Amino acid sequence: MASNETLKIRRIGIDTYHENVAYLNRDCELYRAEGFQALSKIKISSDGHRVLAVLNVVDDHSIVNSDELGLSEQAFSQLNIEAGSSVTVDHAEPPKSMDAVRRKINGERLSEQDFIDIATDIVESRYSKMEMAAFLVATGQNNLDRDELLFLTKAMLFSGERMNWHESLVADKHCIGGIPGNRTSMLVVPIVAAHGMLIPKTSSRAITSPSGTADTMELIAKVDLAPEKLLEIVQQERGCLAWGGTAKLAPVDDMLISVERPLGIDSQGQMVASILSKKLAAGSTHLLIDIPVGPTAKVRHMRQALALRKLFEYVGDQLNIHLEVIITDGRQPIGRGIGPALEARDVMQVLENDPAAPFELRQKSLQLAGRIIEFDPDVRGGQGYAIARDILDSGRALAKMKAIVKAQGEKIIDLTPGKLNYQVIAEKAGIVANIDNLQMAKIARIAGAPMDKKAGVDIVKKLGDAVEKGEVLYKIFAEFPSDFKFSTTLASQNNGYTIGTKEQILESFVPY
Amino acid sequence: MASNETLKIRRIGIDTYHENVAYLNRDCELYRAEGFQALSKIKISSDGHRVLAVLNVVDDHSIVNSDELGLSEQAFSQLNIEAGSSVTVDHAEPPKSMDAVRRKINGERLSEQDFIDIATDIVESRYSKMEMAAFLVATGQNNLDRDELLFLTKAMLFSGERMNWHESLVADKHCIGGIPGNRTSMLVVPIVAAHGMLIPKTSSRAITSPSGTADTMELIAKVDLAPEKLLEIVQQERGCLAWGGTAKLAPVDDMLISVERPLGIDSQGQMVASILSKKLAAGSTHLLIDIPVGPTAKVRHMRQALALRKLFEYVGDQLNIHLEVIITDGRQPIGRGIGPALEARDVMQVLENDPAAPFELRQKSLQLAGRIIEFDPDVRGGQGYAIARDILDSGRALAKMKAIVKAQGEKIIDLTPGKLNYQVIAEKAGIVANIDNLQMAKIARIAGAPMDKKAGVDIVKKLGDAVEKGEVLYKIFAEFPSDFKFSTTLASQNNGYTIGTKEQILESFVPY
Repeated sequence: MASNETLKIRRIGIDTYHENVAYLNRDCELYRAEGFQALSKIKISSDGHRVLAVLNVVDDHSIVNSDELGLSEQAFSQLNIEAGSSVTVDHAEPPKSMDAVRRKINGERLSEQDFIDIATDIVESRYSKMEMAAFLVATGQNNLDRDELLFLTKAMLFSGERMNWHESLVADKHCIGGIPGNRTSMLVVPIVAAHGMLIPKTSSRAITSPSGTADTMELIAKVDLAPEKLLEIVQQERGCLAWGGTAKLAPVDDMLISVERPLGIDSQGQMVASILSKKLAAGSTHLLIDIPVGPTAKVRHMRQALALRKLFEYVGDQLNIHLEVIITDGRQPIGRGIGPALEARDVMQVLENDPAAPFELRQKSLQLAGRIIEFDPDVRGGQGYAIARDILDSGRALAKMKAIVKAQGEKIIDLTPGKLNYQVIAEKAGIVANIDNLQMAKIARIAGAPMDKKAGVDIVKKLGDAVEKGEVLYKIFAEFPSDFKFSTTLASQNNGYTIGTKEQILESFVPY
Repeated sequence: MASNETLKIRRIGIDTYHENVAYLNRDCELYRAEGFQALSKIKISSDGHRVLAVLNVVDDHSIVNSDELGLSEQAFSQLNIEAGSSVTVDHAEPPKSMDAVRRKINGERLSEQDFIDIATDIVESRYSKMEMAAFLVATGQNNLDRDELLFLTKAMLFSGERMNWHESLVADKHCIGGIPGNRTSMLVVPIVAAHGMLIPKTSSRAITSPSGTADTMELIAKVDLAPEKLLEIVQQERGCLAWGGTAKLAPVDDMLISVERPLGIDSQGQMVASILSKKLAAGSTHLLIDIPVGPTAKVRHMRQALALRKLFEYVGDQLNIHLEVIITDGRQPIGRGIGPALEARDVMQVLENDPAAPFELRQKSLQLAGRIIEFDPDVRGGQGYAIARDILDSGRALAKMKAIVKAQGEKIIDLTPGKLNYQVIAEKAGIVANIDNLQMAKIARIAGAPMDKKAGVDIVKKLGDAVEKGEVLYKIFAEFPSDFKFSTTLASQNNGYTIGTKEQILESFVPY
């Protein structure tokens, strides 16, 4: 290919976050920059390497010259060729499967092949964020029947790789999310693994929440593990607590989530497809799903929780996974800490049988671990909880956690919270009648969690507690002055607490 | 405000096309770049000026320093303060009206206030493109009832300014689009204005089509006119052919279109709201709507055209505009040229009564002009066509066009097509049985239209014409080698023509 028909690749130090961007100088003689711009994407090719990107036109020659094509960090790493290499540019065709999305918008039912085509186009980066948003809304609330949901789940599963642990019982648990401080996995995994059951837990990092299990676990051990290393650890310890991002499991799921979360649309169907595709790709055979119910949880009414349970059961049964659903109390944060360091502290207190350990975090973790232990055919129905409690109380869970941490790669643990702190005070006396999960999560996130490991919220008063005027409800911790200011301002506008009477506490949940 | 609490604005020469982008150095000590990035937008403020933008994190100090905040061209011009000025950055709240969008996704009916809130948030740039896509899909096909559609139209109308011509009869025409070469406005306006009726036509530039009226008119006259100048021209000449972008009419419409077009979703409801809000904002009192019907037109069946007509009539009547709908033949491009210069040539030939002028462009323009002239209470029903024809044949239309061009600002006219050209040849003998509007538009657009005024397609054979093998069907013109290659490759894959028999020609349209 003659050099006058190609552009030289230049790596531009701009992080465009989940979107590939290419930069073309307006004076480029080879390609008409403006001609491309109205279109959704361009295709950049070089010797079999190919990447799709949105085009930005540049007037500054110091950023990109007229014989160069700049690529944002994301696009550069995806194209995976050296800076200075020659590339050609072409119009990217709109993804063909958008026809199916338009049919869905018009109310049609889609076929299994439609969902496979859509998942393939998404995983190959043919969809813009707008197009993904269109797909998500078109397949949102009530717009997919159960079989379409099954097709979507399968298509998402087949979009990536699939792990195989070569055992007949591979346990996992998953909470549908929305409850801050809900770090039960870091307790369930050591308990279940100590029982001898295989539980290779891979978790995500937080996207819009103040911490994911991987963010919290990362404070005490390495979580970014190569698939071979993971296999070795799991064979040796029966469990792990790793970040799932290295394994390319159901990648479509991650791409849709990056659009779904900022939009705040999270339909039941998409939740089922997301969770089950990820878990099946991770090689799970037995799965416990935790659905917290509460006025500020993702699921707000018992009837919704039951409908969601049926959906999980239908798709799970069709896809041959042993699935059980547990409905839990989602009226307030679990534990006390919200944010990586504060949550890790709570977890370690429970493992160490510290009398100061948060009671409900312990209780909920034992409840979940007990149900998973009952997947073991040798355990009598109803005995799981007692077995789990024995494992925790005897220190075997702590020993197992230490072994897992050592196998993954130990870190020097420093769980002291952020240096900037602020106390949120009760403005009147009464009973804590409500704690807003969403507001508490938001305050912790704005304080810097999960990016700043030591930032977050430490809860002092919980639902049902009596408070005097002036007593501390919770503390905010931050590392950076701007984040500290943003979060304390937010808490002063709405601190998330309702102080009232005992009668005001909503009892509309299923007890453990 | 102390300088250590602010960042200095730097203008970054990057054109991010309809989206504001801010660039923050990863080493910025004042704000934690990564903390902002997962969120949809940030808010940048300075002395009452405010702009919302998506954040990109920069690792290159030559692009933006750690004490600076870079703004893309769009964001810089919207914030409208000098480079080097001090700004503060804050988290942008997600738009409150997205709650209404989520309610719509869940199947609820929205109120008039909901639509006003949504339009306000969109016009104030609070919506990301993803959020606009969610709104468009949620309110798409069949999801709005007639009154919701009326609310949407009103909300879009009230989002911007409104022109007032201080006359009781202000005529306008609008075609719903999708037919290449359909430049009737440039004939209808001089005919109607020559009759003495007020017709202040403002048009858009092409977004995804090969040319808009403004793009074509721009070749012979200035179209970018200040509102006062426009008023003066219209008072003097009774008509104009200007670009509508300067007047800030129904700005929400433009913002939604920038998402709708690349997504290829164009519901009937959104089309009605878009057209009527724009026309009402432009001060029209009498409006003729042209709905072309054909297998590759926007409206493919007569029953759809009739349903669309009812929607236009319902909303138009509620909003007190005198509205008539005409259903026309949309089976093939109108005229011969597709692309600004080629279309301008067609228009001038018709105005000059050149025997080579394309017949259907003349006929269709007379038909439309005749119907508009009948808005005049002094014209007897059925006489409009003859009056229009007299105006055109007598040269009064040409004289009026020259007067309008002179008033707007004459240009040196050069309508020679692009220097690179390619002939598309019939591969067999037969009758032209179908011409694909979408493919023809795409070939012209990829050839460089409307950006390159001389690029496009010049049609030789039209529907029903007999062709011999090897005869020229149409010619492609381009200015740039890369565009020329893209377009000829596209035409070789699918030239848009079906050569068959006379019986294959679809007769499913309403004759003029």
